[in-house]
Order: sequence, then C-alpha cells, then structure tokens
Amino acid sequence: MERERSAQRIERDIETLAGPEYTTTDEAIRRYAYTDVYHNTLDYFTRELEAIGFEVEHDPVGTLVARNRPKGEPVFGIGSHCDSNRNGGRYDGTMGVVTALEVCRLNHERELGLPLQLISFLEEEGSGFGQMLLGSRIVAQRVTEEDLRERFRAIDDGRSFWEHAAEAGYEPERWRECAHVLDDLTGWIEMHIEQARVLQDTGNRIGLVTAIAGYVHADVTVQGRGDHAGATPMDIRLDPTTVLAESILELERLAREAGEGTVGTVGEIEVDPGIINAIAARVRFSLDIRGPLDDAYRGVARDIAAFAQQAAEGRGMTAEYTERQSLPATPMDGRIVDALEEAARATGEPYMRMHSGAAHDTMCVADRVPTAMVFVPCKDGISHHPAEEASPADAAIAAEIILNAIETLT
Amino acid sequence: MERERSAQRIERDIETLAGPEYTTTDEAIRRYAYTDVYHNTLDYFTRELEAIGFEVEHDPVGTLVARNRPKGEPVFGIGSHCDSNRNGGRYDGTMGVVTALEVCRLNHERELGLPLQLISFLEEEGSGFGQMLLGSRIVAQRVTEEDLRERFRAIDDGRSFWEHAAEAGYEPERWRECAHVLDDLTGWIEMHIEQARVLQDTGNRIGLVTAIAGYVHADVTVQGRGDHAGATPMDIRLDPTTVLAESILELERLAREAGEGTVGTVGEIEVDPGIINAIAARVRFSLDIRGPLDDAYRGVARDIAAFAQQAAEGRGMTAEYTERQSLPATPMDGRIVDALEEAARATGEPYMRMHSGAAHDTMCVADRVPTAMVFVPCKDGISHHPAEEASPADAAIAAEIILNAIETLT
Repeated sequence: MERERSAQRIERDIETLAGPEYTTTDEAIRRYAYTDVYHNTLDYFTRELEAIGFEVEHDPVGTLVARNRPKGEPVFGIGSHCDSNRNGGRYDGTMGVVTALEVCRLNHERELGLPLQLISFLEEEGSGFGQMLLGSRIVAQRVTEEDLRERFRAIDDGRSFWEHAAEAGYEPERWRECAHVLDDLTGWIEMHIEQARVLQDTGNRIGLVTAIAGYVHADVTVQGRGDHAGATPMDIRLDPTTVLAESILELERLAREAGEGTVGTVGEIEVDPGIINAIAARVRFSLDIRGPLDDAYRGVARDIAAFAQQAAEGRGMTAEYTERQSLPATPMDGRIVDALEEAARATGEPYMRMHSGAAHDTMCVADRVPTAMVFVPCKDGISHHPAEEASPADAAIAAEIILNAIETLT
Repeated sequence: MERERSAQRIERDIETLAGPEYTTTDEAIRRYAYTDVYHNTLDYFTRELEAIGFEVEHDPVGTLVARNRPKGEPVFGIGSHCDSNRNGGRYDGTMGVVTALEVCRLNHERELGLPLQLISFLEEEGSGFGQMLLGSRIVAQRVTEEDLRERFRAIDDGRSFWEHAAEAGYEPERWRECAHVLDDLTGWIEMHIEQARVLQDTGNRIGLVTAIAGYVHADVTVQGRGDHAGATPMDIRLDPTTVLAESILELERLAREAGEGTVGTVGEIEVDPGIINAIAARVRFSLDIRGPLDDAYRGVARDIAAFAQQAAEGRGMTAEYTERQSLPATPMDGRIVDALEEAARATGEPYMRMHSGAAHDTMCVADRVPTAMVFVPCKDGISHHPAEEASPADAAIAAEIILNAIETLT
C-alpha cells in the first residue's frame, strides 16, 4: 500500500520533470547546467524539499544540497544528478534524485527523524561542457582552477565554464569550498537506473552495487599504406584494417578470458581515407576496457596494446597505443552494502549483488565517505536515449530499501 | 636520342598542364568537365594537334576527338582522359593523352603516315558529377537520357549534367551521336600510369595489359544491439564490430585463396553510433572485390556475403549484403597485345604482361573495337594524390612501343 503510494509520487515527479518547462526539446530530455530548464528542475526539487522541512542551498557552482539538520551535524547523504545527456530519457539521474526525494518524504511521513542530506550533482552527463561527472569532480577537487577558468568550455558557445557559472549567479572563484558539501556525511547512497540489461535478463528488481568499474580509455592507430584497391595485389598490401580486425577479436578473447566482469569494446573506428576503392592508409580505433578489478582490466589493456603492436609489425606496419584517460575501480563500503542487502531481503523482492560498469558521481564521493549504490532495471538496457524506460514501482522498492538501510546505519 | 627528345616534350607538356591555368587549386591538380581550366587543357591539346595537321572536334558532350584523316576513313585510336580527381596529381590520365600526342608527333616527324585518332574522354574521374568513366560510358551508350537529364548532378551545385553541358555550349540532346566517336577505329591503345607498385617492385618500365579487372562493389550492414560499453557483460553483447572483424579476415583469406589476381578490400567502415563508450548498434562496411577472372572474384563476393551472414547469425545478429554495382572483366585483344609485346621487346627495356586492377575508359571501348593498354610505373603506387609521380622517360618508351605496334597493325 505504502509502496504503491511511493510509486505514484515517483511517477508524478518523473512525469512533471519530462514536461516542456524541464527540457529544451520535445523530442528528448535535454537539460544541462545553467539553462532555464535546469534551473526549473532544481527549483522543483527545492519546493518539494522545503515542503518537508529541508533547507536547500547550492554550492558555489550549482550543485544542489538540501539538509534536514543544521550544518555541522552528521547527516546521511542520498541523491544523484538531474541533468541529462543531449538526447536523453526521463530516468537516467533524475530517477535517482526523485527516489532520494521519496526517501526524504517517507522519513518525514513516518516521523523517523533520520538526519538526511540530498545532493543533486551538477553536470554528470557533460552535456553542457563536455566534462562528465563535473559537479562531483569539483566537490572532490579533482579539477584545477585552470580547467574551470580556461579548459572546460561550453559546447554551445565555446565560452568557459567559469564565465557561464558567474553569469548564472554562482561564484566559481569559491569553487574550492565545494569540498564542504561532503563534510558532514556519515555515508552516501546513490540510486540509479542500471543502463544495461543484467537485472532485466536475470529477473531482478534491485541491484546492490559492490564496486564501480574502473576503466582505461585508449586509442590504437595503425599505420598502413594507402594503395589502389583494384591495382594492388594481396601479397604486397599493408592494409591496416586487418590489424583492426585481429585486434577486435583478440580484445573480445582477452576480456572473456579475464572474466570477473571485465569488458572490452571498440566503439569508434576511423578509416583514412575511407573510400570504397582505396586500401586504408591508416586506421584509428578506440578501446574502452573496464571492470571492477583493476588488475584484470588493466591487464587486458596492456595485452591488447602489445597484441596490436605485434600484429601490425607481423604485417610490416606499425601500431601506436595512446591512453586517453583511466580511473581505478571504486569499491563500495561493505557495511552499507550489507545493510542494503538486509533491507532488500526484507522486501521479498528479487535482488542481486553486482558491479556497475558505468561511471557515476558516487566515484567522486567514495574517497571521503563510505558509499554504496542501488540499481533498478531499465528496459532492454537502453539509456541515454528518449526510449529509456524504468519502473516507478522498482524505484519505490529502492526508496524503501535505502530508507530502511539508513535507519539501521544511523 | 629520339627517345630523349620525346621524354623532354612529354615532360614539357606535363609541366605546362600543371600550371595555374590548368588547375583550380595550387595544392593539387583539380580539373573536371566544363570548368575553365578543363577548357584550357583541351585547347592546349587542340593547338598542339592542329600544328601537326590534325582536325580537332568535340563530341556532343565534350569528349575531344582529333584525326589526321577525314571522317569515314579507318584510323587507329589512341588516348586517355585529361580530367583529374579533386585532389589529384599530374599524371593520372593526362600522361596518357600527352603520350598519345607524342605518338602523333613522332608519326608526323617520321612521316610514317599512320592514320590516327586521338581521344581525350570527358570526366573519367567523376570529379564533376560523381560518375566515373562518364565520357566513355556516353560514347558506349551505357547511360540513359534520364541519367544525363536528371540523375547525374554536379557535385558543386547540384544542377544536372544536361544543364551544365548545354551551358558550356555543347548539345546534350545529341548525346546518342557520341557513339560515332568509335565508328572508324580499327583498334585502340590507351596508355596510363599503373596506379599500383607492381612495375616498380618488379623493376619493369612497361606493363602490357592483358585484361582489365571486373569488379563487384557492395556493402554489408551488420545489425547488432547498441549497449553501454561499461555496463554490458561480454556474454550478452550483440557487438557488430566482431562480425566486421571476422569478415575482414575472411575476405583476405578468400581473395588469397582465389588467386589469379583476385583482390578484396574493405575501404569504408561506418560505426553507429561510433562513440568510445557505446557498443555499436550497427556497422556498415564496403567491399571492393576485383580480378581479371569473373568466376574467381564473383565467387569471393558470393562467399564473403554468405560468410558475413553466417557469422552474424552465429552471434545472434543479422547481416545484409547489398550490391552497389558490378562490371565484368574486359579482356584485351590478343593481336594488339602481341604487337605491343613485339615492340616492347625491341626497345630492350624491361616489360611485363599484367592485368589492370583499376577501371579505365578502355573498358567502354572494348565492346566495339579491339583494344589494349600500356602501363608505366608510378612512384610507390601513389595515384589520385598531389604526390603522384611518373617518369617522362618511361612514357617516351611507351610512345615508341605504341607507335611501332600501330605500324605493324595497320
């Protein structure tokens, strides 16, 4: 009965935030930092939270922080992000904030008196400035002042993050104070849609995240020799697409062999010159290699780099491996995960422990605060797309689990 | 001595036609139908040919035809094309017309009295209207009136071929009369740069073409399932790049196995959505499969289509094979090739018989006239590029061989 009411409230929040005031296009959800629709979204949460006794403020760049205790008193953190990617759906991020709001509502209705702090991090998707997890990275101080003043620039107009933040009424020069957002937290739980199909395919309604995968993002560039596709015999070709092909299959083999949730993907392939009647002179392909175990996925990255180089040399070509970026895996806090599992079991609904293959703001919280995450299924694993779909009934279960876990933890 | 003089004249022609009056950019050779620089190029050949007693005219769409005999009398045809691709070099096509001009000059100087017709076909490269071999296909009547009036449109402004031809002073409504260009020919020899590295790598200065490869151009589209690259375990992926990879390697194997000059190339790869952190939903790749033996390369095309479909199905995906275009192989005329070989042997220079992997205007002549082609090396096989390089001394040998062969044939 109560769960049903939670589901209705969650559905109403989600529906409202999909309306024309909250997205810059009617073909998708599109909202990002400092747009009117983003402000409206923060205002919606502010109204709802103030109605149940929360004090709401923004950190110096725009991350929303709402507390039901005065600053300095310990609180338990819950939340997610409410920006979207540019062609996004209603659920990614937003359903996490909405579920956190529902936890606050239940706490209020039941007069549990749990000390809570809701956070909605700025710019998780990078739609505004091309920088993922931007708000939480600023909170974690994983950026430099130069990044904010100069390097990070708006996709729409090329002006700096700094300029946009100031224009929106924030005080970017106080960005170091954003670190205080986490000062009073005794723990942190983020709820998010899964963004894959493991829960759906296994028939589970709840995922308890034990670790967020670390990753290596890299590129391999194979230098061959551009020749005429018709006039060049097979035995004198230096065709870099063959090295691409061998590397794709070897990456698949290595990731499977590594196991333990390790995955490897070639998502970008760029062929130069890329015309039907020319043997490629050069091929670049991207590598996205992840997993919850640093040694495992890093081993795959090392092995595929060596493999591509050997495969190229064996065919008289060269291959260069360049790492773009890497981030270690983030283990979740065992005590919080155990409390969540206890609460999940009590619901009688099917749940599982799993790791998160996707990155989340929680990665930037985990250094300073014991953290965990709760996943709900998303239909067919589709996310970052208007067709994204998730169930308010599942989110209501998540709210119940989170509330009950926090109750045992505080 | 005489060969040295030929080489100098050929070099002068090539140098002249690389000047600013003959290309629309100074970074490459770029000339195509109905541009001023293309008119200037035809005018250059006209002046040189009239100076040695040729009558020059254009067919109803702009292919240049020059004869040293009145219409109706048998003549031996020589020539090539003098348009370039958009980022082209000095030699592709143009060196063939220049060498034909040199044959005419030698015939004049030596007072051999050979009946000759020089042709410079319009739009071989397709830079104007995206249609390769366009002038020779009109001569061979391998186009329709609708193609010319409607379908073939200028890359620059989208207006029809018909409109451009009329604006340039031609009479496209008389296009069927272009067929008469071949009426009086007793034979045809085209000289061209090889566009590959077989002659260079084997140390030959002359290639005698025995057949022009036929080809199949096709696309394979593999439909997978776009998923999150981090969140989707290896064993539930439908990643179409794996089918691409297997197909690239199988195409290489099949082409090698077929032998007999069969080649296969994947030159275009398009990944959708093509971002580092997404498993592709769909991959399209092109196939360019050629060879001098129709059964051999067509067998490879059939086999790779079946392979891609099976590979996709084996992984729970689908693959669709779509043929864009195909053209059968064109055997050269044995009597003309023998005459060329006899003449080549007499020069004392190294030569070889070979097939042409690239397509040429001669494919459109061969139906009605006994034909052959002569190749000269091009440095490192580079063509269709400003770095294209070929030797006027080799072209001078080719001119001597062609002249002497025609002498024995007429």
